[in-house]
Amino acid sequence: MSNQAIQEHTIINGVNVDQQQETVQAVKNRPELAQFQFRAHNQWQGGGHNQIHVDKYYGTCQEIQRDESFALTADQPSTLLGTNKGPNPFEYLLTALSSCLTTSLVYQAAAQGITIDALESDYEGDINLQGILGLNPDVRKGYEEIRVKIKVDSNADKEMLRGLVQNSPILDVIRNPTPVNIEFVTE
Amino acid sequence: MSNQAIQEHTIINGVNVDQQQETVQAVKNRPELAQFQFRAHNQWQGGGHNQIHVDKYYGTCQEIQRDESFALTADQPSTLLGTNKGPNPFEYLLTALSSCLTTSLVYQAAAQGITIDALESDYEGDINLQGILGLNPDVRKGYEEIRVKIKVDSNADKEMLRGLVQNSPILDVIRNPTPVNIEFVTE
Repeated sequence: MSNQAIQEHTIINGVNVDQQQETVQAVKNRPELAQFQFRAHNQWQGGGHNQIHVDKYYGTCQEIQRDESFALTADQPSTLLGTNKGPNPFEYLLTALSSCLTTSLVYQAAAQGITIDALESDYEGDINLQGILGLNPDVRKGYEEIRVKIKVDSNADKEMLRGLVQNSPILDVIRNPTPVNIEFVTE
Repeated sequence: MSNQAIQEHTIINGVNVDQQQETVQAVKNRPELAQFQFRAHNQWQGGGHNQIHVDKYYGTCQEIQRDESFALTADQPSTLLGTNKGPNPFEYLLTALSSCLTTSLVYQAAAQGITIDALESDYEGDINLQGILGLNPDVRKGYEEIRVKIKVDSNADKEMLRGLVQNSPILDVIRNPTPVNIEFVTE
């Protein structure tokens, strides 16, 4: 008998695919396990500077307390009347999209047994301030277009990888309308 | 004559409203100053862990190098097969929305001379994993709904403040379709 530790799980792209398959099977058996709720709290600090706190979430039919919570800083650069203490909202949106496309590609490749050796990507989006400032009704307030370049090192066919990326939930949120319900709470 | 320093700028809510008015006037005179481009770079680290870098942007007809660039970490919690090194893509999207609603409210209030004394907000969004896992074609991959609660301390009318928030560019991106062009680059 070998004295090496027995590898108990199959790991592809850093993803435990045994656990992944168990998750899919569990959700098939009990669809209510699939309902998740993610959250953030924002505390204004003055001007364009605000602080975001990310902690508990709900999933698999229970409140889940992370081992570690996260504090993020947002601000505007000086050109946009801020003090550059952190990325701005436009850059946080690209951050969300980038981490989602990356994870979607890596996780779904793992599920299909496709090995990814390296992966990086670049994001750029166009904002015309005339929209936000209300100076031109034909200009939208949000991103006019977002462009993504993905550089992936894998033996798999690029068209196949392109298909995997289309499953990204944040891509869905950006490309398609998502309802946002805003309530003002009295002090 | 007073020996106090002369206040050279009008500051409301931490926003230099003189500079704000100058910006609006400059864009009216030269609309090309309004064209901005924001960017992010994502480097995959393995599994659900990836690193985002935010640095230069384009605006006011020039490349702008920040005094300080920013590194962000994204990961999934253990429930979603990650190692919890940072917020996940869903939470980064709420972060983007929260910093944009906050800044939109504060900046536009300042432009109208409305003082905000305190401002905080809570965000939650529903994700049903059946969509992402492809188990139910009727379930979307992205957020089914996002709910926002804004607590603001201000003498201004709540309906007026609610109106200001509607101008948020990230709210526009989430509520309405935004084109995303994805290109795969060969090594």
